[in-house]
Amino acid sequence: MAEPKDNALMEKLVSLCKRRGYIFQSSEIYGGINGFWDYGPLGAELKRNVKELWWQRMTRLRDDVVGLEATIIMHPQIWRASGHVDTFSDPMSDCLLTRKRFRADQVEPQSGIAYHYTGARDTVTGRTVADAFAVLLPPGKPPESARRTATAFYLARGLQNVELTGETTEKVENSQRFNPENGALLTEPRPFNLMFKTYVGPVADEDNVAFLRPETAQAIFAQFKNIHETSRQKIPFGIAQIGKAFRNEVTPRNYTFRSREFEQMELEFFIKPDEAVEALCGSIAVPSAPGHPGEPRPDWGWQMWHQYWVEERIRFYESIGLPRTSLEEYWQKPEELAHYARATVDLLFKFPFGTQELEGIAARSDFDLSQHQRFSGKSMTVFDEELKAAWPRLAPERQADLTARYRAARLKYLSRTGLDAEAAAKQADTDAANLAKGYYVPHVIEPSAGVDRLILALLSHAFHEEEATDEKGRKEIRTVLRFHPSVAPIKIGVFPLLKNKPELVAKAREIRDLLRPHHNVFYDEAGSIGRRYARQDEAGTPYGVTVDFDTLGERPELKDTVTIRRRDDGAQERVAIGDLRAWLEARLH
Amino acid sequence: MAEPKDNALMEKLVSLCKRRGYIFQSSEIYGGINGFWDYGPLGAELKRNVKELWWQRMTRLRDDVVGLEATIIMHPQIWRASGHVDTFSDPMSDCLLTRKRFRADQVEPQSGIAYHYTGARDTVTGRTVADAFAVLLPPGKPPESARRTATAFYLARGLQNVELTGETTEKVENSQRFNPENGALLTEPRPFNLMFKTYVGPVADEDNVAFLRPETAQAIFAQFKNIHETSRQKIPFGIAQIGKAFRNEVTPRNYTFRSREFEQMELEFFIKPDEAVEALCGSIAVPSAPGHPGEPRPDWGWQMWHQYWVEERIRFYESIGLPRTSLEEYWQKPEELAHYARATVDLLFKFPFGTQELEGIAARSDFDLSQHQRFSGKSMTVFDEELKAAWPRLAPERQADLTARYRAARLKYLSRTGLDAEAAAKQADTDAANLAKGYYVPHVIEPSAGVDRLILALLSHAFHEEEATDEKGRKEIRTVLRFHPSVAPIKIGVFPLLKNKPELVAKAREIRDLLRPHHNVFYDEAGSIGRRYARQDEAGTPYGVTVDFDTLGERPELKDTVTIRRRDDGAQERVAIGDLRAWLEARLH
Repeated sequence: MAEPKDNALMEKLVSLCKRRGYIFQSSEIYGGINGFWDYGPLGAELKRNVKELWWQRMTRLRDDVVGLEATIIMHPQIWRASGHVDTFSDPMSDCLLTRKRFRADQVEPQSGIAYHYTGARDTVTGRTVADAFAVLLPPGKPPESARRTATAFYLARGLQNVELTGETTEKVENSQRFNPENGALLTEPRPFNLMFKTYVGPVADEDNVAFLRPETAQAIFAQFKNIHETSRQKIPFGIAQIGKAFRNEVTPRNYTFRSREFEQMELEFFIKPDEAVEALCGSIAVPSAPGHPGEPRPDWGWQMWHQYWVEERIRFYESIGLPRTSLEEYWQKPEELAHYARATVDLLFKFPFGTQELEGIAARSDFDLSQHQRFSGKSMTVFDEELKAAWPRLAPERQADLTARYRAARLKYLSRTGLDAEAAAKQADTDAANLAKGYYVPHVIEPSAGVDRLILALLSHAFHEEEATDEKGRKEIRTVLRFHPSVAPIKIGVFPLLKNKPELVAKAREIRDLLRPHHNVFYDEAGSIGRRYARQDEAGTPYGVTVDFDTLGERPELKDTVTIRRRDDGAQERVAIGDLRAWLEARLH
Repeated sequence: MAEPKDNALMEKLVSLCKRRGYIFQSSEIYGGINGFWDYGPLGAELKRNVKELWWQRMTRLRDDVVGLEATIIMHPQIWRASGHVDTFSDPMSDCLLTRKRFRADQVEPQSGIAYHYTGARDTVTGRTVADAFAVLLPPGKPPESARRTATAFYLARGLQNVELTGETTEKVENSQRFNPENGALLTEPRPFNLMFKTYVGPVADEDNVAFLRPETAQAIFAQFKNIHETSRQKIPFGIAQIGKAFRNEVTPRNYTFRSREFEQMELEFFIKPDEAVEALCGSIAVPSAPGHPGEPRPDWGWQMWHQYWVEERIRFYESIGLPRTSLEEYWQKPEELAHYARATVDLLFKFPFGTQELEGIAARSDFDLSQHQRFSGKSMTVFDEELKAAWPRLAPERQADLTARYRAARLKYLSRTGLDAEAAAKQADTDAANLAKGYYVPHVIEPSAGVDRLILALLSHAFHEEEATDEKGRKEIRTVLRFHPSVAPIKIGVFPLLKNKPELVAKAREIRDLLRPHHNVFYDEAGSIGRRYARQDEAGTPYGVTVDFDTLGERPELKDTVTIRRRDDGAQERVAIGDLRAWLEARLH
């Protein structure tokens, strides 16, 4: 992150979020808990809107995606199949003196003279301790300082009258092997798994270990067969899920961006392997131009589907107020890709603390379902009637070519599973033979978005300060959150011009009740109308409706009309109460 | 539960839920995980609808309730304040022989002869083991059987040539102290805390213990002050939250009714203490008749508010298709109430496995906020300007009376907190003096509902079987889920009469696209129209729209009309496409 951080903006955002009830520190009255954040009234509505819009667009507005709501705690074997048990870890080192734990790759590099010791002996009892130890001293510090630290180390190991043994020194540059706070040697880095662990059932032993899911995606793979069999969907189709996930981050940071409890919106879109598409359609459509490729077609291979979902996801962000220009498309380089991934695009957003990932859209081949097939022993293949029918009509050389390519892809996967070469080759033969009979493990395109980071992006994109003049003619800085109406926590503020005029209040409440079944409305009668506008500007409310004396008929031609004030330019217009719903309906989506 | 269980209905429900994708066992491909359930495509939609309707009714349609979305993992001190660390436990006993763990109060009672031993000695080495042990034999079994079991016990403690010592026998009736599977003595019952435990941060030690929340309510109390200060709400007002909670149930049971991971919809509605209401209004309204007490009034005491919320909640259930007659109101008896609770009403529903709680509505006094005030050291009092102004205008004897009653209530709470009598009395004096200055800790009414059990209630209430005649004239049993339209996962099925007529298909898709932005639509073109109707009956879809040749103008007077079929009576009517949205809109809420 070479780009400058906008700390001032971040501070303003955090302060606004706390002051207006968007985001609070979890358990704040108990001093908080690092990496956990709560959404207050406005934040909860904002988050609900975002999740609802995602769900609407990804499932309800499509024929080819269905939903799932799976548990956070699942069978632990799922995390073996996914690789999380083995590899979802950060390297950690402990200070040998204080036991303080550091993320090994984030230790501040130190230079100086390292004093090494092979051990120590007790000058009275003669007992020896042979644990090696070392202390790094910055240039210029006297050796005595290192010896004092080393002595403390051996005292803690049970010696009482310490004589250090085997002292040697070494010049050290930019080392991450020493505790920056006291110079003491750190342990070798060891992997620290980022999954939160717990025990299910009354006995806390290894048989009952379970994990809080570190991502929602795996539940989709685990339930793929059940859903495929019960939902009347055929490949290609997708399964969508929104839900909490947990990662025991060593250093949660950047406000809600990297927290320990967060929410994901994930789609796994299952597609046919390219070889099946080619067998069915004769050829495979591949991307020919940037941009949205239009309505899905049967001859799309994985590249077209990947491009399609990248563009669909960008359109989603555009639809909720993050223009394409606010996003950056980052195509992972071949060496950055996971071994099973064919392509991954990160959609980045310029947060105040740097440009960071909002969503990743990965083409993950058939890796995930293959892993669960292998670990569960349950078949993850689907049967494709049309493929079975199409295959015999292919020319023999086409059959041979497709078989060879499919076999090679399966072999690539199988040879990484620990099978010996012969067994892998045999399994690849079987898999390839099954393709000809219409069976395959679906491939998957995965658009995976983080709700919390999206909320943060929406907040920081919406945040504006403007100079305004208050009612007494003083200049002041006003905050306006320019949310897209579809995500705004409150859609309409409703205000009687004066609180102490019962007719104004009654009419305003009538309008509140008229609009409330359809939109989230905030009724406010306290303070000057300017103050009330300003409060709604901070809440990001796009429209304010004011009931005044003209509404009651003071000027007869304006009877039963109200003033609508627009948040973004402060402009006002007069609308008949009877037209209000339609006026808003046209502008709130 | 003396009432008969309807196992047959339960089996049908479970089977339907799996077959149609409402509910799957979590991690089923790995053999499942006891007490965890996933919601498939139809189940996820049903659940989303229920949660959305609750949220809409409880927050967006009211001025006096705001939302919260807090984390599942919170500061562990919260669970000390709430009492969960100390008392949220079941008694557990372990088999001394096999270590198998039992819920002590659920061990099947055994009768017979108990053989007690004071210990054993090794006849070769002379070593003795003085651990007492016992075995229960059913009547008629030879003593040798007990001795063999006891010998195994002492062998496991390191003896090799066991001679049992101190054998005595005792007649035992209905004892829960022995393992029903092998007669071996169980350990004394010990409390087993039902909270799932984990560690936050890189070091798994006691300082970093955290719990998965066993209820959502406590987050509301912990954030009460933040929300009160930022939301422009005054007492009385409420905070609503929907979210997951976790309980490590020893014996999860009754399908999704008692599971280990579940979802709650909780409202904490904060009210003034009765003494403050009386000071403000001169007297307190108390319930005078059963039923809904109407719009809230300033003179309501806790009893009116409690009755109000009981009735509001019943109205909610009515609005989503559970009629009042399907619910039972159970008023907890004084001896059943928690010590701080003033009244609790359980709303019960007749599940196939027995009549069980769907929701509890509790009047919890000021216990919760007082506890968090005490454990966090942060004030949970609110300042009531009007109360401060009203107090000096009260007659001195009224002031004295209110002060005495408020003091007595505070003292009752304080004397249970471990404070000595003098300190408690002093604090109660202070609290009572503060009331006169306008300060108090709010009381709370808590309607707390379980989403999963509500889903199960909706499913079992909606489940109907009917005899029907299929297209070939055969009788068959058809399943219909008669969901209220507001909760039905799919609102409208859209069908072209025939799949192979492009004009029918095109028109049907047009109608799908017309309705989809507003309602969840399922488009289906596969199979006979009767089969498609039957499928939607099982999905609980209230209306089906069929595009036929008349729609295309075969009979010109019916051009651009469709057939709407009603799920509940199979009746059909003809509606113009242009009127379709309004027709449905009028019936789907």
